[in-house]
Amino acid sequence: MAMEEQKTPTAGEASLRSAQQTPDPMESVFIKELVKQFRAQDAHGAWDKKSDRQLIEPLIVDKEKRKTIPVVGDPHPEVLWRVELFYNAVGMTIERQTGIMVSPMLKMHHEGFGRIVLTAGRLIVVNKFLRDIHRFGFPTIEKMAEEGEKLVATGVDMIEKFPEAAQHGE
Amino acid sequence: MAMEEQKTPTAGEASLRSAQQTPDPMESVFIKELVKQFRAQDAHGAWDKKSDRQLIEPLIVDKEKRKTIPVVGDPHPEVLWRVELFYNAVGMTIERQTGIMVSPMLKMHHEGFGRIVLTAGRLIVVNKFLRDIHRFGFPTIEKMAEEGEKLVATGVDMIEKFPEAAQHGE
Repeated sequence: MAMEEQKTPTAGEASLRSAQQTPDPMESVFIKELVKQFRAQDAHGAWDKKSDRQLIEPLIVDKEKRKTIPVVGDPHPEVLWRVELFYNAVGMTIERQTGIMVSPMLKMHHEGFGRIVLTAGRLIVVNKFLRDIHRFGFPTIEKMAEEGEKLVATGVDMIEKFPEAAQHGE
Repeated sequence: MAMEEQKTPTAGEASLRSAQQTPDPMESVFIKELVKQFRAQDAHGAWDKKSDRQLIEPLIVDKEKRKTIPVVGDPHPEVLWRVELFYNAVGMTIERQTGIMVSPMLKMHHEGFGRIVLTAGRLIVVNKFLRDIHRFGFPTIEKMAEEGEKLVATGVDMIEKFPEAAQHGE
């Protein structure tokens, strides 16, 4: 799970990647969808002056920040809300790529444990058991884009593997 | 949805059915599993003196009882707990019949709206959108047995239809 892997790319890796592949992770399809999910929540224009990067910033939880977040008790509703936005963005990106409607379902248990499924018809396209939700986030925006796109790819794969289940009504 | 259908069988129908088919709904496979789910919650033997029928009695909500239950606000945790036990029993009965592990996932939204899925591997074997959860129940034990068995049958059908998705890991 993303939250548990905390490998920060070395400076060499990062510059290599940024030179060769993604000049700016903010331009990735997934991050653009994520920004859209955040903007869609802003009914009163309170965030109009926030940049896209500022909007998604709370999802960046690096090693230092992780240490400051205790994992006792139930996570703050704001955290759950960000988890939902992240997986909504995954679902929407899968939906755009496949044309098949994807619905998220997040069930929190206690103390930051939970399960999220993204469903299409009778198929579970993405299935994640979550823990330490309090610290949900990614070390860098680049890493978040990568993780989001990996989830999208596995979701699209599942739909291609089980198209009938994915299109099964009710 | 069971809760919405409130057709009580006429005396004639009921006696016909009980004479021909199910002499005692308490003996049905589903109701026996449901009783087991209730008993499994009783860590301290507080219900030892309760009969099986008394245990499941709170799930019997007939027309008169329905009227007395308001559907405003969030449903009582006891109600949610009974909903979970009912669907756990559905899941366990499917599991016993197919040998495939079934997990329940209940997500409540607000004011008694929610969704329950029973999942096996990557397959959603039972999918229900719930409303007016406050009034969750069945007019008679016989009707509850019937509804439970109907859900079990459709779940088993789904697994037979999509065996690969149902056995897909992670």
